[in-house]
Amino acid sequence: MSGNTFGKLFTVTTFGESHGPALGAIVDGCPPGLELSEADLQHDLDRRRPGSSRHTTQRKEPDQVRILSGVFEGVTTGCPIGLLIENTDQRSKDYSKIKDQFRPAHADYTYHHKYGVRDYRGGGRSSARETAMRVAAGAIAKKYLAAKGIQVRGYMSQLGPLPIEFKSWEAVQNNAFFCPDPEKIAELEAFMDQLRRDQDSVGAEITVIAEGVPVGLGEPVFDRLDADLAHGLMSINAVKGVEVGAGFACVSQRGSEHRDEMTPDGFLSNHAGGVLGGISTGQSLIARLALKPTSSITTPGRSIDVHGQAIDVITKGRHDPCVGIRATPIAEAMMALTLMDHWLRHRAQNAEVSVDTPRLEQYSR
Amino acid sequence: MSGNTFGKLFTVTTFGESHGPALGAIVDGCPPGLELSEADLQHDLDRRRPGSSRHTTQRKEPDQVRILSGVFEGVTTGCPIGLLIENTDQRSKDYSKIKDQFRPAHADYTYHHKYGVRDYRGGGRSSARETAMRVAAGAIAKKYLAAKGIQVRGYMSQLGPLPIEFKSWEAVQNNAFFCPDPEKIAELEAFMDQLRRDQDSVGAEITVIAEGVPVGLGEPVFDRLDADLAHGLMSINAVKGVEVGAGFACVSQRGSEHRDEMTPDGFLSNHAGGVLGGISTGQSLIARLALKPTSSITTPGRSIDVHGQAIDVITKGRHDPCVGIRATPIAEAMMALTLMDHWLRHRAQNAEVSVDTPRLEQYSR
Amino acid sequence: MSGNTFGKLFTVTTFGESHGPALGAIVDGCPPGLELSEADLQHDLDRRRPGSSRHTTQRKEPDQVRILSGVFEGVTTGCPIGLLIENTDQRSKDYSKIKDQFRPAHADYTYHHKYGVRDYRGGGRSSARETAMRVAAGAIAKKYLAAKGIQVRGYMSQLGPLPIEFKSWEAVQNNAFFCPDPEKIAELEAFMDQLRRDQDSVGAEITVIAEGVPVGLGEPVFDRLDADLAHGLMSINAVKGVEVGAGFACVSQRGSEHRDEMTPDGFLSNHAGGVLGGISTGQSLIARLALKPTSSITTPGRSIDVHGQAIDVITKGRHDPCVGIRATPIAEAMMALTLMDHWLRHRAQNAEVSVDTPRLEQYSR
Amino acid sequence: MSGNTFGKLFTVTTFGESHGPALGAIVDGCPPGLELSEADLQHDLDRRRPGSSRHTTQRKEPDQVRILSGVFEGVTTGCPIGLLIENTDQRSKDYSKIKDQFRPAHADYTYHHKYGVRDYRGGGRSSARETAMRVAAGAIAKKYLAAKGIQVRGYMSQLGPLPIEFKSWEAVQNNAFFCPDPEKIAELEAFMDQLRRDQDSVGAEITVIAEGVPVGLGEPVFDRLDADLAHGLMSINAVKGVEVGAGFACVSQRGSEHRDEMTPDGFLSNHAGGVLGGISTGQSLIARLALKPTSSITTPGRSIDVHGQAIDVITKGRHDPCVGIRATPIAEAMMALTLMDHWLRHRAQNAEVSVDTPRLEQYSR
Repeated sequence: MSGNTFGKLFTVTTFGESHGPALGAIVDGCPPGLELSEADLQHDLDRRRPGSSRHTTQRKEPDQVRILSGVFEGVTTGCPIGLLIENTDQRSKDYSKIKDQFRPAHADYTYHHKYGVRDYRGGGRSSARETAMRVAAGAIAKKYLAAKGIQVRGYMSQLGPLPIEFKSWEAVQNNAFFCPDPEKIAELEAFMDQLRRDQDSVGAEITVIAEGVPVGLGEPVFDRLDADLAHGLMSINAVKGVEVGAGFACVSQRGSEHRDEMTPDGFLSNHAGGVLGGISTGQSLIARLALKPTSSITTPGRSIDVHGQAIDVITKGRHDPCVGIRATPIAEAMMALTLMDHWLRHRAQNAEVSVDTPRLEQYSR
Repeated sequence: MSGNTFGKLFTVTTFGESHGPALGAIVDGCPPGLELSEADLQHDLDRRRPGSSRHTTQRKEPDQVRILSGVFEGVTTGCPIGLLIENTDQRSKDYSKIKDQFRPAHADYTYHHKYGVRDYRGGGRSSARETAMRVAAGAIAKKYLAAKGIQVRGYMSQLGPLPIEFKSWEAVQNNAFFCPDPEKIAELEAFMDQLRRDQDSVGAEITVIAEGVPVGLGEPVFDRLDADLAHGLMSINAVKGVEVGAGFACVSQRGSEHRDEMTPDGFLSNHAGGVLGGISTGQSLIARLALKPTSSITTPGRSIDVHGQAIDVITKGRHDPCVGIRATPIAEAMMALTLMDHWLRHRAQNAEVSVDTPRLEQYSR
Repeated sequence: MSGNTFGKLFTVTTFGESHGPALGAIVDGCPPGLELSEADLQHDLDRRRPGSSRHTTQRKEPDQVRILSGVFEGVTTGCPIGLLIENTDQRSKDYSKIKDQFRPAHADYTYHHKYGVRDYRGGGRSSARETAMRVAAGAIAKKYLAAKGIQVRGYMSQLGPLPIEFKSWEAVQNNAFFCPDPEKIAELEAFMDQLRRDQDSVGAEITVIAEGVPVGLGEPVFDRLDADLAHGLMSINAVKGVEVGAGFACVSQRGSEHRDEMTPDGFLSNHAGGVLGGISTGQSLIARLALKPTSSITTPGRSIDVHGQAIDVITKGRHDPCVGIRATPIAEAMMALTLMDHWLRHRAQNAEVSVDTPRLEQYSR
Repeated sequence: MSGNTFGKLFTVTTFGESHGPALGAIVDGCPPGLELSEADLQHDLDRRRPGSSRHTTQRKEPDQVRILSGVFEGVTTGCPIGLLIENTDQRSKDYSKIKDQFRPAHADYTYHHKYGVRDYRGGGRSSARETAMRVAAGAIAKKYLAAKGIQVRGYMSQLGPLPIEFKSWEAVQNNAFFCPDPEKIAELEAFMDQLRRDQDSVGAEITVIAEGVPVGLGEPVFDRLDADLAHGLMSINAVKGVEVGAGFACVSQRGSEHRDEMTPDGFLSNHAGGVLGGISTGQSLIARLALKPTSSITTPGRSIDVHGQAIDVITKGRHDPCVGIRATPIAEAMMALTLMDHWLRHRAQNAEVSVDTPRLEQYSR
């Protein structure tokens, strides 16, 4: 395939450009009998929707999703699920200038040389707008997994230089940053306001966690659960790093410290982040991702045009000063899609497996 | 597939357990006409071979690879390349004790519950021994890419708490650590000796770089070059984190700092690590991976057996006190396999593309 | 995947039920720079459209296709192409009776038991209406291949008991049967009229031919060009048999008769149908497919309902008395998609191959 | 992939040339816990082995298969199964002449132009010898399916002009032709002896049947059970046609005749061949395949050499005068692999499905 499909058994194939008529996706492999309605998808779409606060792009998109197939009388039929979102706010503007420019740190330059042609309106296919369909498809996986007792949630764990401590899931839902610490929000607001005055942007770190994951998901050796998760998370726009459990901190750890010891009462720690040998342990699956600062800032930058001439670029338009702020639902979606795919893959090969050994209850975090 | 295949057009499928009769792989999709001999594969196999220094496992394996098909009169024919390495040093021992134990931080527990049965001898399929076939297959990709002007190399950038500065590629070849700084080696040796006395293990960070990568490799949106690379690197045993370019450092960077500006003379920096929008920029492709400390240490650890009873585990046997020490050739192999796959994928879809825009010469690093 | 995707590099994924809101497809892997408009797709869609003659279903569907992505300023961009056709004539009717019945020789029984739930309106996903999207996607492949000098065309070679001789391609375009013999049409018309009076249906045989195919397309050993073609053609509703070249006639042939001898002026025959060892020879690719008679007839048939009770079924509604009549454009589409996929696959692996041996000009047929 | 893998969940990847050191395969996706030994594979390998009668090639190959991984203490572990067969009888001969010749109806010409290089010894990769690995892998699928009550068997239904009636499965096992009619064997013997005197070859038709198939296997719309089966059967060397159930006979059938009516006691016929809408009905899965006459005959034939010069070719060496004679185990293997793959695929998506509707007992044939 040419890269627009994710998953092997629960497959999501997407299409759509930032300023085209619509975005769409086909979800193939969803088990039949799952109660599903557009409302189930809309919830997460609204969580990532632009314009929800002054700290995100002011583009106004209702992102109303339609289910065009695969659901009959309120339940999935086992047939492919067609999803569609019409683009409504493609503000018509004059692209004559930008069409010949390569914005620094944008995909303009690479798309131009790879394909020889590109839809330059709003970034075309490389726009973060593409992630709307990941969230819609991810919501289907989330609903299926929830029925199996698996809950996928995320939060912002760092905004630029400001680390954020986890306090509660409740807090995450009550602010535009997906910040788990209510007392930190004022500081984040102030930081973002100053950033906008500086006409600059900043990076962020998101943490995603799946609780209730059973032991046994993941296919060694190449399609390890953590390897496929890394694939999914790194495929999100602007992501430059992914880590599981202790992550890069494990470099300076010693074996006696890193190894998660076990007792009949459960694991004593979770430095593994819920994966051993590429297979889930039954503990929480924990991952973190690093998102780079938005490249579209109004501070002039040096670049070249399609003729190779030096130019100064100022990226006007409606952009997120921190793409990470809206990334939490997207990261949740990619983790849910990964788990869903591996749930089906595990079931295909191991349906007969029954082990009478006690499974360890999962470590709280 | 069930997880033992890597790549979509240049596919590597492997088999083999640590103490089985042999390891093998099938490389499918290699272009015809490539001069190839077993010697081309043996070089990298020797670089990762155990027992090459007192700091790695003392298991003695010649790791002699045989090419069983796909090569005729010294050149590849376009037919699948069968590779085989016989296991010679499967020291026969009494496994009656270990067979019922779950070693902490090992895949024992997860394999047991996923499959209901496992080859407990030396870790079976979950043993790092499996990576020998990655290296063999990667060497084929490396040779093909080299002919295209692409060179993939790696080095150790941190050992436990000791960061290592890059000094020269020459240095990397002259020590068991793949350390790029000759003056650092004595310190590493001392550290490892003390570690062994402590009966403990430690993690490491490896940096891998591909130079000479053309602009245009990578398939948005899910099969981005960096996403597939993250998949490949995270699939290596013991890897807990992967980053590209600035990686996690981008979280606290500002857009004005992170963005790589361009001039007619080239890029002015490479925080992107050679990828924009999932497509190679023509700069060096730069990735780092974090490897956890070996779980097999002789310091007793709490665990349970298959009956759920509490036990103390002491892992005897021949183990690497730092799996990272031998990981450099493996990381190179996974980067080479990823680039090779995308080279073919790009060519399939874009063979007609010809862009007269000047490609920027790559930034030195 | 779960079966709704065709192709490995030029992939077509479809969705949509007979009486749902819309049908859709995503074509991924189309090379950039191809001039493409909705008119290019509409031509073939109109050729398969129902209601074009009194010998096909009277359902009225304009089958107006929309291109939602992947095409910018008239040319493909290399990004996925989203296609959509709204269903307009889903005649609302009372399904309370049919919903509990299994129509003989229909997919009702198998869908019911596979999925436990089914969209019974007009056959849902199992309706031949699904093939509209194959035709739309196939038209993209046809246009690309045409630019390479490859022309894919088909015709009806038998209607029920009436064999049809090939006279000319011109003739094929001028009748509702895709009949290549103008003098045969009256007979076909009379046969169909009588069939309708008999309240029965009949099968048909379609022949598809690709001219201008270069030597070298096809991937041994499992993805032979003819094997993938058989996959594609057998996946069309109602197809029960596929043959290439001499087909089943080769059983009673002798080697001295079947083998296509070669001279410097070309092949002397084409019993192979354009494929040797799974790779195209450069001759015309020739395949035939057998379509069963429509199962939906008004003559009562014995069956059971979902409760296992015996029932008599009379299938009312708007059905084709011979599905084969509209099958020619669908068969062309599947051959075009197969060739397109293998064109890209061949190019990926063999771009460097240059053989100075003379290629034989293709045998006329 | 480049064509050497069959299946999506139960995948078989093969390598090996006729005169290379060995043939091999990797079977990935086999469920754990299946009792498996080399003897299970050897049985079918012996059934297809050359030299078992005077009517097949006199090449002597023990075809002793080794299991190199994936099986531990007599049961499969869920890890990839590595298979190896050493080539022992690669009679060394002078290839200087044949290396520059294209044998008519052979893959010489197509391999030469596709790859630019080829292993001309005994046909290299295009040799029927490759099918040994299909049989070995198929035996694993057969054993798994047998435990589920599915039995896959085949027989020769026509030899050249001689149709063969099915009498009994017992008969099939007692002759070199896999002939189900004991009284027909003398005629077949005489026919083959005369054929050899004529220095010619002939085609054959094989029928393959799977009994005990449950309702529900197959993934609409492209990966229909019959479409994937057609793919598998058409991928066998020399196969030119595949049909399911009534096959091409359905062209002249009427709907009232073809449709398989149902009663509470079961189906009343099986023209469908066990598949409706691409999903198994629970009846016997019935397919037929046509194999062309061997191209390697000693009667001179016109051809060209690599320089494009006209030549006369006489194919000496050890060849089957009728490749169909040894094709039955191969066809069984491909049907078993197809069913096995779809068993796992069905289970992945539909594990929760439970339908209380009575399943119809299968029609005897």
